[in-house]
Amino acid sequence: MRWYVVASLLTVLTSSQGILTTLSQSNGGYKYDYATVPFLAEVFKLLVSSVFLWREMQNSPPPKMTMDWKSVRLYPIPSIIYLIHNNVQFATLTYVDTSTYQIMGNLKIVTTGILFRLFLKRKLTNLQWMAIMLLAVGTTTSQVKGCGEASCDSFFSSPIQGYLFGALSACLSALAGVYTEFLMKKNNDSLYWQNVQLYTFGSIFNMGRLLMDDFRSGFEEGPWWQRLFNGYNMTTWLVVLNLGTTGLLVSWLMKYADNIVKVYATSMAMLLTMVLSVILFNFKPTVQLFLGIIICMMSLHMYFAPPSTLVDLPLTVKPVSESVSEVPAERKTDS
Amino acid sequence: MRWYVVASLLTVLTSSQGILTTLSQSNGGYKYDYATVPFLAEVFKLLVSSVFLWREMQNSPPPKMTMDWKSVRLYPIPSIIYLIHNNVQFATLTYVDTSTYQIMGNLKIVTTGILFRLFLKRKLTNLQWMAIMLLAVGTTTSQVKGCGEASCDSFFSSPIQGYLFGALSACLSALAGVYTEFLMKKNNDSLYWQNVQLYTFGSIFNMGRLLMDDFRSGFEEGPWWQRLFNGYNMTTWLVVLNLGTTGLLVSWLMKYADNIVKVYATSMAMLLTMVLSVILFNFKPTVQLFLGIIICMMSLHMYFAPPSTLVDLPLTVKPVSESVSEVPAERKTDS
Repeated sequence: MRWYVVASLLTVLTSSQGILTTLSQSNGGYKYDYATVPFLAEVFKLLVSSVFLWREMQNSPPPKMTMDWKSVRLYPIPSIIYLIHNNVQFATLTYVDTSTYQIMGNLKIVTTGILFRLFLKRKLTNLQWMAIMLLAVGTTTSQVKGCGEASCDSFFSSPIQGYLFGALSACLSALAGVYTEFLMKKNNDSLYWQNVQLYTFGSIFNMGRLLMDDFRSGFEEGPWWQRLFNGYNMTTWLVVLNLGTTGLLVSWLMKYADNIVKVYATSMAMLLTMVLSVILFNFKPTVQLFLGIIICMMSLHMYFAPPSTLVDLPLTVKPVSESVSEVPAERKTDS
Repeated sequence: MRWYVVASLLTVLTSSQGILTTLSQSNGGYKYDYATVPFLAEVFKLLVSSVFLWREMQNSPPPKMTMDWKSVRLYPIPSIIYLIHNNVQFATLTYVDTSTYQIMGNLKIVTTGILFRLFLKRKLTNLQWMAIMLLAVGTTTSQVKGCGEASCDSFFSSPIQGYLFGALSACLSALAGVYTEFLMKKNNDSLYWQNVQLYTFGSIFNMGRLLMDDFRSGFEEGPWWQRLFNGYNMTTWLVVLNLGTTGLLVSWLMKYADNIVKVYATSMAMLLTMVLSVILFNFKPTVQLFLGIIICMMSLHMYFAPPSTLVDLPLTVKPVSESVSEVPAERKTDS
């Protein structure tokens, strides 16, 4: 499969995730425990990857699988980073309102670019750097609160801690992504074997989270395994399946494409969700959504189009300096 | 003088124009007849150009001056286009509110690019086209009405005539600019001789406008030449001087640089005015202003930076497609 097919699929499924999650609510709330969704998605990914790995093991040559503890012990690290990230997110939200929080979230596009360069030593052209910044600017533009919308706090009025936690959150999110890419690419182990390791630890950490919730609530509603499927309906299962599938696609992209591709896919998904919300939920279309889409499309083109299609042209490229150099020296200083 | 020095000066003076005009008001209104300002600015430009032309005529070789009627008759055309443009602007405003009108005004950036290509046959790279579109998007972004601001009409709710007139207005504005550039560059006549012709017709047309106003009001306040300086103070004279000087700079740019340079200068001026308004008049800074500035700066860099600084890089430019092509064929279709 080509990376852009996978990236497009990721865009569509990530976008559906938002729509499905909204549809799975009843009367503005969840009938089920939302924390069970990521756990079940991890289990789903683990099952799917195990089946694929098992199939691969029937083939010859068998898939490459590094079983060394030195390698295996690296696989819980993304889960640990996400755990810290969740807590930092929580801390950020005590200082800033959700709309400022959402806008700061776009910072992770830029931090991903920076860590991608520093950590994975991948070179980007100046144009690609500009494209990444434009992507962040474009997604932010689409989220600017329109006139007449509820919350009216200025973006610049939160306490400094809010911005610092927001920046830290963006760095951690980027670090998790870049680290996963490093992990997937560091050897040519089978993707499914790498997935099995990732999702085993992912399932364990998510289980730990459910258990923590139980302890916090004093087991009021019973242990998590007894209330796992409470309130689940068809849509909830679709949410789980969808989240699991997007996870598998991200994993594939981390191995065969890169973090920047993933960032583009998820940003485009955000815009697609907003467009679908206008259509499905009768949201009012705003100028800023329209502008954001144009900016992100240009960014996409700037990043991925072959440079020769962007700048290659014969001698007439810079008419300005040409015509200036034709001006006699005296006239130049005269006017 | 270099074109970017003139362009920067134009940016600063165009920006001051907004600030000075605001300062020249008392109690939110004009004590003087605002229509006298462009007339006096035309006269100022005519005087300055005449003096420079006279000085040039003392030199040897004397300046090149085409006096042929076939050439002279082309010089009232920009004034005529502006006259039509003013009336279309007026018609547009009967269909759309001022904020929609302001946002549509940014369309002239794109129409200038298009007419620049069609009429002056100047080639632009794809990247430069994208830069021009981004400039329009950036200026529009900075103008998006924030939450809590007075008018709350949707941009998409005006009647279709409003958008058509807005588009026509953008075309006429671009046509005037592109035509002036054609006029200034069509031969190597002295800039000052060209200016004298332009501003003679400009003064006549502005005088005609003042006379029209007099007829409309039934000469209630006397003929325009009797009330020309009524209510003028120091700031009003600065407004006239400033408008005249920006006109002379635009003229210079049309001959020695081009319309795109002018469009960048005036767009940057718009942003500078907004920043100065935040500082001088205690306006609330918005996220959209901040985003608009970033977008326009990137556009500026994309348009004017030498292409080699934007895309030239060794082989590591496109790691994505490289890593994908390394994937064995079976795995590509498998996942």
